Amino acid sequence: MGKLAIIGLGLIGASAGLALKRAEPVDTEIIGYDKNVDNALTAHKAGAVQRLEPTLEEAVAGATMVIIATPIISIRQIFEAIAPRLQRGAVVTDTASTKGDVMRWAHDILPAGTHFVGGHPMAGKEQSGPQAADAALFDRRPYCIVPARDASQGAIKAVVDVAEAMGAVPFFMDATEHDSYAAAISHTPLVASIALFNLARGSAAWPELAGISGPAFRDLTRLASGHPVMSHDILLTNRENILHWIERYIAELRRVADMVESDDAEALYRVLAETQYERDNFITSPPKREPDDDKKFELPTASEAFIDSMVGSYWRERSSELNKVLEERNRARERVDRLRRRD
Amino acid sequence: MGKLAIIGLGLIGASAGLALKRAEPVDTEIIGYDKNVDNALTAHKAGAVQRLEPTLEEAVAGATMVIIATPIISIRQIFEAIAPRLQRGAVVTDTASTKGDVMRWAHDILPAGTHFVGGHPMAGKEQSGPQAADAALFDRRPYCIVPARDASQGAIKAVVDVAEAMGAVPFFMDATEHDSYAAAISHTPLVASIALFNLARGSAAWPELAGISGPAFRDLTRLASGHPVMSHDILLTNRENILHWIERYIAELRRVADMVESDDAEALYRVLAETQYERDNFITSPPKREPDDDKKFELPTASEAFIDSMVGSYWRERSSELNKVLEERNRARERVDRLRRRD
Repeated sequence: MGKLAIIGLGLIGASAGLALKRAEPVDTEIIGYDKNVDNALTAHKAGAVQRLEPTLEEAVAGATMVIIATPIISIRQIFEAIAPRLQRGAVVTDTASTKGDVMRWAHDILPAGTHFVGGHPMAGKEQSGPQAADAALFDRRPYCIVPARDASQGAIKAVVDVAEAMGAVPFFMDATEHDSYAAAISHTPLVASIALFNLARGSAAWPELAGISGPAFRDLTRLASGHPVMSHDILLTNRENILHWIERYIAELRRVADMVESDDAEALYRVLAETQYERDNFITSPPKREPDDDKKFELPTASEAFIDSMVGSYWRERSSELNKVLEERNRARERVDRLRRRD
Repeated sequence: MGKLAIIGLGLIGASAGLALKRAEPVDTEIIGYDKNVDNALTAHKAGAVQRLEPTLEEAVAGATMVIIATPIISIRQIFEAIAPRLQRGAVVTDTASTKGDVMRWAHDILPAGTHFVGGHPMAGKEQSGPQAADAALFDRRPYCIVPARDASQGAIKAVVDVAEAMGAVPFFMDATEHDSYAAAISHTPLVASIALFNLARGSAAWPELAGISGPAFRDLTRLASGHPVMSHDILLTNRENILHWIERYIAELRRVADMVESDDAEALYRVLAETQYERDNFITSPPKREPDDDKKFELPTASEAFIDSMVGSYWRERSSELNKVLEERNRARERVDRLRRRD
């Protein structure tokens, strides 16, 4: 295959190098470049790349495949720097978390005779940098593949081969689909996590809140420790989609709040039981992507029946306990109302 | 110490039994009861309790300490059932995630001469039931202790001793404080997680979203797999606090959305850098609870200076890259505006 260049040797770039080395592509030399010399040396020492190049231009010269694993905003300038040095037929790919801007930059800047195929491995962890690199980071993880309109079949296959060599599972989609899906499944969780952390951190009771915080708070705020450059570039380059999904998330939170506020305790229980059922189902047997199956969005009858019987039997069992609590609450409310009327 | 009875042998009750056995309290017999016979047998087989009792009444007869680890709503009826059988001086505690209702029930129902000291270990995991029990579940976890107004010092000490024997770190607070803090740090994350899962699950693109979902979505929706009975009882018994914090959470999400929407990319970067700094700080050196320290809510000057220099140097480095992207975005917006004016 020749020379494969990894530009950007942070968590993703260095992990890609380790994963590709693990796959032992016999005739490929993996070389690396990072403008941060410490990152470059750490990745090289960890064995993520066989050799370092001192400049971007030298890194891509003669490369048949270039993987750009830098922050999104930097990709534009990297395209400009490498465009004159790419050899004819070179395949360029990236690992950015948003695809719209990157695809446009590739179209505007990369020269004819080269092929761009966008990539986005759905993998990551709390730590960043090459010291956190892991050959198994991409194992069985989805890898979004977004080919440029003019990319050759050979170029697409080359990027699919790299994704599979890294242990990942390729998913094809276009940039618009990708950015909308990623906003829902990845960038809105990022915003949710940041907002949840700042909600508690900004409270006057923060020392108490932090003192009694358990694994729930820790897990839910994990993404707030994400590298600010990465988060920043995501929020800048996928703005409209993210704003759309934040509004939908707020509407969903309001829906839960309305149920909590209502006196229909059984309806609330049903939603919670359905949620647990669906979440467990997602973990144990995630849905397959079958775009031609019209029925794909309907819950199968069996699950409905299962949830019905689960809710029903459980409800019979605890209704007397619950009724006492609800009656007590209503009495308390009436008492408050009476006191208010007296004022 | 005599006989210690654990009522409810799910994840928490069975883990408490295992943790107490690990601490080897030489003169204490740990017995258990669960109205679900399968749970009782599983917990007994796992060694969480030395002996099972066939009824609630027999379980508490002669016990010097009773730990109630059932769903919150059930505690009221358990108090009614055990009240006539508790021996004089018995100490009763619980592990419920909300404390207001439980403290009131204890006051109304438990007989004079017994002592109630509420407890809430801040520990848990995705799985439930005694098969998921773990002797280390409470290790170094906070354990909220909420004594009834008339509980004796001896009773309070006995519950603190149990919490410490389980490996946990006791925190004293009253029921009002507890329920407000727990709403912020534990119950709002629960609602956030449920809403985030249902947002994606309810989307027409769910098969695609699930297909490309990564660890972010998985971690952030973990609490949606929580046992619906537990979630339900939390939402019912801490309603006002949870509704209050959901509104504050929505306001915080709006604040992030406003920053994403604004054109002040540097301000957005600063917030993300501060968030990462504070979250990392929380993980590596969580704040101590020092109620008498007036300065506790202020960020120390050193951190401000550190963040300033971090933001400043980074900004100088990437401003040219960013400006190109922002200019491009503005040009695109102007183009759209021109087209609109033409219509």
